[in-house]
Amino acid sequence: MSEILDVAIIGAGSAGLAALREVRKHTQRFVIINDGPWGTVCARVGCMPSKTLIEAANAFYRRNTFAEFGIQGADALICDIPAVLRRVRRLRDDFVASTVKTTQELGKRAISGRARLLAPGRLEINGRELHAHNIIIATGSSPVVPKPWSALGERLLTTDTLFEQTALPARMAVLGLGPVGIEMAQALSRLGIEVTGLGSNPAIAGLTDPQVTEVAIELLGYEFPLHLGKKAELTADGDGLEVCVGTEVIAVDRVLAALGRRPNISNLGLETLGVSLDEHGMPPINPDTLQVASLRMFMAGDANDQVPLLHEAADDGYIAGFNATRSVPVCFKRRTPLAIVFADPNIAVAGNRYQDLDHAKTLIGEARFDHQGRARTGQCNKGILRIYADMESGRLLGAEMCVPAGEHMAHLLALAIDRSLTVQDLLRMPFYHPVLEEGLRTALRTLAAQLPAGQESDLAACGEFNMEALD
Amino acid sequence: MSEILDVAIIGAGSAGLAALREVRKHTQRFVIINDGPWGTVCARVGCMPSKTLIEAANAFYRRNTFAEFGIQGADALICDIPAVLRRVRRLRDDFVASTVKTTQELGKRAISGRARLLAPGRLEINGRELHAHNIIIATGSSPVVPKPWSALGERLLTTDTLFEQTALPARMAVLGLGPVGIEMAQALSRLGIEVTGLGSNPAIAGLTDPQVTEVAIELLGYEFPLHLGKKAELTADGDGLEVCVGTEVIAVDRVLAALGRRPNISNLGLETLGVSLDEHGMPPINPDTLQVASLRMFMAGDANDQVPLLHEAADDGYIAGFNATRSVPVCFKRRTPLAIVFADPNIAVAGNRYQDLDHAKTLIGEARFDHQGRARTGQCNKGILRIYADMESGRLLGAEMCVPAGEHMAHLLALAIDRSLTVQDLLRMPFYHPVLEEGLRTALRTLAAQLPAGQESDLAACGEFNMEALD
Repeated sequence: MSEILDVAIIGAGSAGLAALREVRKHTQRFVIINDGPWGTVCARVGCMPSKTLIEAANAFYRRNTFAEFGIQGADALICDIPAVLRRVRRLRDDFVASTVKTTQELGKRAISGRARLLAPGRLEINGRELHAHNIIIATGSSPVVPKPWSALGERLLTTDTLFEQTALPARMAVLGLGPVGIEMAQALSRLGIEVTGLGSNPAIAGLTDPQVTEVAIELLGYEFPLHLGKKAELTADGDGLEVCVGTEVIAVDRVLAALGRRPNISNLGLETLGVSLDEHGMPPINPDTLQVASLRMFMAGDANDQVPLLHEAADDGYIAGFNATRSVPVCFKRRTPLAIVFADPNIAVAGNRYQDLDHAKTLIGEARFDHQGRARTGQCNKGILRIYADMESGRLLGAEMCVPAGEHMAHLLALAIDRSLTVQDLLRMPFYHPVLEEGLRTALRTLAAQLPAGQESDLAACGEFNMEALD
Repeated sequence: MSEILDVAIIGAGSAGLAALREVRKHTQRFVIINDGPWGTVCARVGCMPSKTLIEAANAFYRRNTFAEFGIQGADALICDIPAVLRRVRRLRDDFVASTVKTTQELGKRAISGRARLLAPGRLEINGRELHAHNIIIATGSSPVVPKPWSALGERLLTTDTLFEQTALPARMAVLGLGPVGIEMAQALSRLGIEVTGLGSNPAIAGLTDPQVTEVAIELLGYEFPLHLGKKAELTADGDGLEVCVGTEVIAVDRVLAALGRRPNISNLGLETLGVSLDEHGMPPINPDTLQVASLRMFMAGDANDQVPLLHEAADDGYIAGFNATRSVPVCFKRRTPLAIVFADPNIAVAGNRYQDLDHAKTLIGEARFDHQGRARTGQCNKGILRIYADMESGRLLGAEMCVPAGEHMAHLLALAIDRSLTVQDLLRMPFYHPVLEEGLRTALRTLAAQLPAGQESDLAACGEFNMEALD
């Protein structure tokens, strides 16, 4: 190819596809390059198959509420794990197909192979050299697996291999209790597998609020044992493994490593760009433009090691594609932070985390859901919500939670935070009855009680009934 | 009692209790009077027992998804309806207890009996006359039952008697398919009862958007037959009844009448107040102050025949209690309208209804959930969401929906509408992945596509992937 392309996109994951969508609006002189199977991490091994597994696990686990509801026969229910996994793959294949359709239609502009940078604006792919005015790097990330563990062979699973299993063993350890580890440990446990959760961090699921963390650990601890704040050692033992943690030795059949993900930048040739690289091999990236140094090069998605979440990767791709097709890169204001762990109860963080607050200037409102009316009707009355607000203005700053319907409340709070609303502003909105959001209102009211009173004729000043049936 | 009270509250339901809470902040010279059993309609026969029944019904109905998830043995599940009803009453008793605690502590200031007004500031209760500077009327409402039907005796149920049943028959008709009728018809059907739904109105569940109505009717119609837009005639037939609708005759064992509720004002003595009464016997009430004419009298909750919803009744009570303890009644700005029907998928209306829009100035955005990614993982991929926005400004005006998690999305939209946000404002918020709210975003994007483009460096301009896995 002797022509000079306008844009070369390396990586056809969620960020690469979002970049592609923008680039195509401005030029047809582009290529998109993908190494390994096409289809995004999200669709192939991430968000979608994990949620499919979780939905099955939660449906099965719900049988524990049946006798109380008045439904007999729950003991007869059997979880057919191979069938569960078949459905996961069936849906996964559909989801993957939905993501590869676009690139399949591109013909020669979609290239399979591993790209390597040769210099700014130059790269090599399948032994061929390409020139592009702009390069977008969206090579994604891969699960972290400590080198020595490769000796464990098939005993060690990651999310790359978990959903490929045709069956699952009786006993599993999940190593790493961040968002993915917590989601998978609970789902596997709920499917009937004897799960042990192990995290070197004393916190879990990305939470930083000590009280929310405590409740989350307590609730999950009723379902499977958690070992936190200790390093685990793995040793092959016959077909299975021994997990040593402190003085305990736990025999399991398989380990799922959920230790996070690392950008796919090795052998990418970042060292040929003439810019300084940090100790992880990463070049400087402007977080508002995603530009690499002052090159016509942009890094998007997990590859840039910023916020490894799909919705941020999609924004990254949009920004990179936008800026790769403009003469001067434009700065974007990023969205209000939002992170959700699809555990039950849902774990979520909206806006500022507890850990990032200036506690001398912050008020905290809290609600526990043990006696929340609607939650009681649905047998999901557990969890805690903590909301943070500025002491002076009452402006909402953030929230951490482990509550039923937390994924929905986190969106509501994210909107409120994004719009710089105060506690009183949010108390002005209607809360229907009976809904779980009334628990959120309780937390807001505990905040309002700490703030100066608002104007007289404001319904936001309505108080609590302190009656389960009405709050 | 020779003293003149500051406030007499007639009715200890949700509105009366909310009024009490405000009144007590300012005076101890009050009474609260209740006719019939103490405890609110909401706790005794409304929101709470209905939601408890619905939760059991939905848990049982969910078995239809089990085979697809990979869970075997669903056929062995049996719904023990007497047990379901026992739990409904057990929880109901708890909820009622939570509401009567406050009034039990009041001693002589809580009076059981039927009050009758004698004049402004004067009323009679249990043969005794009371004088009060202010009177709050919060007498609630009762189910509408056409007079001739009283001859049907026990064959006819209302929500007042439904939850008192120890068992339920094999075949039931539900008459009236507004919010309560739809909730109960679906719940009874899901518990295994052969239900026929009958509505004289061609619309259901308070919906006014023809497309949302069509989808809701279609989805409910898969579960039980609906006869809409026709008047039904009831005739006793042995222990059961015949329901005649058009040329059809349907034999059922019981009928649940869900024809709405009517304010409890008969024999209340409103005619003694010296103000004009309308054809329903209602006095003029200022909706912003709840004052009756220019009297020191306020009407709150279902009794005032305005918006018969708990959260509005609670606001009513607050306003009435507030104004009964102020020399000059204060006007309150009411909340953004919000109505939720706890059907599955949830039916909801936030802000303006379709019917109330100026269609020459309104844009409509729509999303169907049949292919929504997250909904597919949970086997709840059905429904429709329609959002209305001002054509010129893009300001959100309202929404009608029949979608999974509609109760949560309706709150999000109600907040956005309450804050006068535009389509672009709402598209600025983070939407996590994969969540049902991404379907809401799809509807917003169909709106955004009809509006002039926003500013350049705004993430709200991010487009759709048109990929199930990513939207």
